[in-house]
Amino acid sequence: MSENVNHVLVEITRGGVVESLHRGAACVFDSTGARVLAWGNVETPIFPRSAVKILQAVPFLETGAADVCQANFNELALACASHGGERGHVAVARAWMERLGLEEGHLACGAHMPYETEAGNALIRAGEAPTTLHNNCSGKHLAMLATALAKGEPVAGYHEPEHPVQRRVRDTISELTGEDLAQAPVGIDGCSVPNWGITLAGLARGMARVADPRGLKVVRQSAIRRLRNAVARNPFMVAGTGRFCTAVIGRKSTELYVKTGAEGVYVAALYELGVGIALKVDDGAKRGAEVALAAILRYLEVLDDADWEALAEFAAPHILNRAGRDVGEIRTVAGWPHGRPQTAEPSETAKT
Amino acid sequence: MSENVNHVLVEITRGGVVESLHRGAACVFDSTGARVLAWGNVETPIFPRSAVKILQAVPFLETGAADVCQANFNELALACASHGGERGHVAVARAWMERLGLEEGHLACGAHMPYETEAGNALIRAGEAPTTLHNNCSGKHLAMLATALAKGEPVAGYHEPEHPVQRRVRDTISELTGEDLAQAPVGIDGCSVPNWGITLAGLARGMARVADPRGLKVVRQSAIRRLRNAVARNPFMVAGTGRFCTAVIGRKSTELYVKTGAEGVYVAALYELGVGIALKVDDGAKRGAEVALAAILRYLEVLDDADWEALAEFAAPHILNRAGRDVGEIRTVAGWPHGRPQTAEPSETAKT
Repeated sequence: MSENVNHVLVEITRGGVVESLHRGAACVFDSTGARVLAWGNVETPIFPRSAVKILQAVPFLETGAADVCQANFNELALACASHGGERGHVAVARAWMERLGLEEGHLACGAHMPYETEAGNALIRAGEAPTTLHNNCSGKHLAMLATALAKGEPVAGYHEPEHPVQRRVRDTISELTGEDLAQAPVGIDGCSVPNWGITLAGLARGMARVADPRGLKVVRQSAIRRLRNAVARNPFMVAGTGRFCTAVIGRKSTELYVKTGAEGVYVAALYELGVGIALKVDDGAKRGAEVALAAILRYLEVLDDADWEALAEFAAPHILNRAGRDVGEIRTVAGWPHGRPQTAEPSETAKT
Repeated sequence: MSENVNHVLVEITRGGVVESLHRGAACVFDSTGARVLAWGNVETPIFPRSAVKILQAVPFLETGAADVCQANFNELALACASHGGERGHVAVARAWMERLGLEEGHLACGAHMPYETEAGNALIRAGEAPTTLHNNCSGKHLAMLATALAKGEPVAGYHEPEHPVQRRVRDTISELTGEDLAQAPVGIDGCSVPNWGITLAGLARGMARVADPRGLKVVRQSAIRRLRNAVARNPFMVAGTGRFCTAVIGRKSTELYVKTGAEGVYVAALYELGVGIALKVDDGAKRGAEVALAAILRYLEVLDDADWEALAEFAAPHILNRAGRDVGEIRTVAGWPHGRPQTAEPSETAKT
C-alpha cells in the first residue's frame, strides 16, 4: 500500500530554483454539505486552532450574552480575532473587560508579546510586560467569560473542556460542521481552551454555513450575520496592521470572511458562492497557508487582478534579504490550483 | 512513476495526536567519501545556507589573511557563526572591524534585529537601530573583507559571485565536498553573498573532511583545525544564548562541530567517528531540523543520556502554551532514526 501523501501546494524559491516546499490539503464545500473541490486528504481530523473562532463565538450571541453585555461591533469582531495586540485592540478589550466587571487575571489565555512589532516595541520601551489583554485571543476569552456571566455559570474554569461554556461551544461546532466533536481528539490550544479535531471537510462545511446560513435556525442565522457584519465593519479588529485577514476582508468586506489558525490552517466563507474553504499545510507553516488560500480565492474569481496586485505582499510575496535584495519567491506550484482538481483523496502512485 | 517523497522525520503533537509534521532527508558520510547512512533523497542540490560557514571560512586562513589581521580565536569562531547579535558578539565584531580599518557600511550583509531577544530589547529601549555588526553573519563578512584586504583585492563588491573572494570560497567548497559548484545552481543568501546548491551527500562529505582532515593538504588541515579549536574554545561565539549549536558544542567541544543553516538545514562533524552529517527538512522548519539532528547524534551515541537530558529543551522539546501548560511535543517519528536506515533513495511505493 502506498503512503497517502498530500501534494506540494507552495514552493519557496531562491535564485530561480526551489529551496523549500509546503505540502497540504484543501477543500471547498457548499452549504448543502456537498464537496465542490478537494486537494489531498481532507477526511482526517486536524486541529483548526484559531480558524474556528467565528464558530466558537456563535454561542456568545445565541445565548443572549452579547446583548446582556451590550457588545458593540468592535467587541463582536474581537471575539473572532487573532489580533495583533495593537493599541486599538487592547483598548477595546480593556473597556469590554471593565464593563464585565472583570480583571486581567480572569482571562485564562496567558500573556504574550503583541504580534504586531511596533506594539511590542512600545511595551519594551515603556518597560511594561504584556497582559492577557495583549494575547491575540483576548476577545474570544472575553466572549466566553461574558457568556458564563450572562448564564450565571462559574467564571472560574470557563476554559476547561467540561465547563458549560466549552460544552456549548463544542456542541455548536459539531452542529455547524456535521462532526460529532464529543468523539473527536481534543488538544489544549495556545490560549488554554479546548480545540477539537475536525476534518478539513467538516471545517469547510462549517464555513459554508457561515457563507450561507439560510438553512439554520433563526437565532443561529442572526448570530452568524451579526458576527460577519461586525468583522466587515472593522476588519482591523480581526487581525491588524500588516495582516492578510484584515487586508483581504478590508477589500471584500461584503463578500467574504477569512481567518487564519496556528500551524498552517486557513478558512474562508464566500458569501455569493455560498461556499466554505478550509486548508492546512502539513508542516504548519503560515507562509504556505497564506499563499495557498490567496491562490484558491483567485482561482474562484473572488479576487480579481486589482485585488491580487493590492494583496501581492501576501498573495505573491517576494523574499527580500537583509540588504533588501529580491532573492526569491513564495508561490504556488505550477498547475495548482489551476490544474484539474482532485475530487477524491489521491495516492502518490495514482497521480504521476 | 511514483513521486519520490522524503519520509516524515519529525512530528508535532497536541493532545497526544499529530498536529503537523516535517519531512526531510539526512545522511552520514565518512572522510573517504563513502556513504554510511542515508534517509531520503540526498542527491539533489539544496542550498546549505549558513550551515556551510565553516567551509566558507577556510580560505580566510589558507590565504594567510587570518594571520595578516592577527585574528584571535573569538574572531575565527565568529567567522563560522550565525550569532545572536549579543553584546559579546558585537564587541568582537566591532574590534575586528576597527582593526581592519573598516566601517559598518563596508559589510554588505545588511542589518537586522539581533536573534537574541534581550539583545534586541536593549536596542529598542535605547532607541537604536541594529547595524551590520548585529547581523548574524557579520563575522563571515569580516573574514571575507579581511581576505580581500590581505590579498590586495578590491573591498567593494567582495560579496559578488565573480569577486576573487567568492570564487575562492566556491572553489574551496567544491574541493571539500567533491561537487563542482561552478555548475551548481546559485542563490543569493540572506546576507548577500552567493550560496551554491550542494547535495546533502556532498555537504556531509565536506563535513567529514572537517571531522577528519588528515587526507587534505597541510595548509587546509591546519585551517580546519584552527577553526574547530576556535569554536571549541568559545562556543558562545558561533550562535549564542539559548541556541542549540552553542549548547551542544559547549558539552562536547572536543568531539564535534554542529551548525545550523536557514530553511531547515543542519550539519555536524563528529571527530572520533570521522564522519559528517547533513540534513534538510523539506519545508525549511528549524524546529524540525534541530530535533532531527539531535536524534541522529543520539543514534550515533555521540550524545549519551546525560547529554540528552541537559539538551532536552532542544532535543525533545515540549510545547508550552501561553499560560505555561504543556500541550504537546516536537519529536522524531516512531522508528526513526532507530529503524533500519535506508541505503538508497526510496520511493513511497517501495516502503510501506
